[in-house]
Amino acid sequence: MRYEEFTIEGRHAVIEAFRSGKTIDKLFILDGCKDGPIDTIKREAKKHDCIVRFVTKERLNQMSETGKHQGVIAYAAAYEYAEVEDILRLAEEKGEPPFIFLLDNIEDPHNLGAIIRTANLAGAHGVVIPKNRAAGLTAAVARASAGALNYTPVAKVTNLVKTIEDLKKRGLWFVCADMDGTPMYQLDLKGPIGMVIGSEGEGVGRMVKKSCDFSAAIPMKGDIDSLNASVAAGVLAYEIVRQRIGDAGMGR
Amino acid sequence: MRYEEFTIEGRHAVIEAFRSGKTIDKLFILDGCKDGPIDTIKREAKKHDCIVRFVTKERLNQMSETGKHQGVIAYAAAYEYAEVEDILRLAEEKGEPPFIFLLDNIEDPHNLGAIIRTANLAGAHGVVIPKNRAAGLTAAVARASAGALNYTPVAKVTNLVKTIEDLKKRGLWFVCADMDGTPMYQLDLKGPIGMVIGSEGEGVGRMVKKSCDFSAAIPMKGDIDSLNASVAAGVLAYEIVRQRIGDAGMGR
Repeated sequence: MRYEEFTIEGRHAVIEAFRSGKTIDKLFILDGCKDGPIDTIKREAKKHDCIVRFVTKERLNQMSETGKHQGVIAYAAAYEYAEVEDILRLAEEKGEPPFIFLLDNIEDPHNLGAIIRTANLAGAHGVVIPKNRAAGLTAAVARASAGALNYTPVAKVTNLVKTIEDLKKRGLWFVCADMDGTPMYQLDLKGPIGMVIGSEGEGVGRMVKKSCDFSAAIPMKGDIDSLNASVAAGVLAYEIVRQRIGDAGMGR
Repeated sequence: MRYEEFTIEGRHAVIEAFRSGKTIDKLFILDGCKDGPIDTIKREAKKHDCIVRFVTKERLNQMSETGKHQGVIAYAAAYEYAEVEDILRLAEEKGEPPFIFLLDNIEDPHNLGAIIRTANLAGAHGVVIPKNRAAGLTAAVARASAGALNYTPVAKVTNLVKTIEDLKKRGLWFVCADMDGTPMYQLDLKGPIGMVIGSEGEGVGRMVKKSCDFSAAIPMKGDIDSLNASVAAGVLAYEIVRQRIGDAGMGR
């Protein structure tokens, strides 16, 4: 297994984790705590663009598994994140136009895992998640991905909009799932494509949506608001698959 | 809320529940217990085709919330089940060819809820689940359905194959999701249709599959085995939606 969930507790252990190149998902530091080692940890956190939360001693005690947190607990990545570059390289190796999932604030680990699973089976080359607010690649995500985490690269980026702009320069265009968009069957979803899926509550963020070339609506006939996020991702992804397969042989 | 999860404990309460027409999902009776009231309960259970489990006293004590189970605990339906007839009537009222989901052994409540949610939004007229082995309509299912349980009728049947045969006589035809089937884009999925989805581990049962007119495969390009069951249901359902909407106006 390439993934495993773990916490790192104590000043020395956390500094060591940063220096050995481990990906820290989140860092919890005792509020008001100021000394040499803690300052070092803060500097490392800043350098690695890691999220820091300042919390009370009670909270740290509650989170601690060893009882020896010394004012700092880190959540380490259960899995090695890939780079966006790795995803593009994978597409190139397969001789396929890139097909990338981008997830805007999918916070539920079961949904995140199911979406990575769908990405794998739909033939997408990777998944991009934002550093902020997204669920990390924890054991729960790995389980829900049914092993797909071992095959499908997942990259974590600081700014989803910037990543979209960068990828546009590389020839990708972007479609986001949006209830007010054009019915997905009317869009041309072939070629190098990034598919953006938002959270169930809020959908795709305003700035992210603005940076997309198209908004695709999944037709909804029912009485309730929206599909489960992982189901919506699957439905839109497979409309892309259908169009990529082409009318020849498969379509009707 | 039309749904709420509850257990009924004690002989009198359980007999009363049967007589007032409540749907009992499961009945737990103390193994070896034989007397008048218990015999009455067993008769009622048989009449209502309800699943009975004979368990130890320790198990009952563990399950009991009141500590006064008197050798019998019933799990009551959190929701009123519909009849298959109700589903057909709903299609007729809407003037649409029936579109029904049939679930073969979907045991995970989150998947069941997400599938009912998808059924609602894809415009299906109802969901049929088998009495045996399926997850009941519990509070967890209701939550995962995001309210769809209030709109989309769910019927519970004793024998899925028999229900399929009956519905065939009413003009429906049946497609099951199956990895070894025909690519779904090559099938004609218009008209009155029943869509059969199996569990993730086992797929659709052999006898159920045999009674279907077609097997539809979702194209899989990846390294792992199968999609999450609720994602697979969504993907196949929306291929049906696409074909029902028709090429005019929407298709490309």
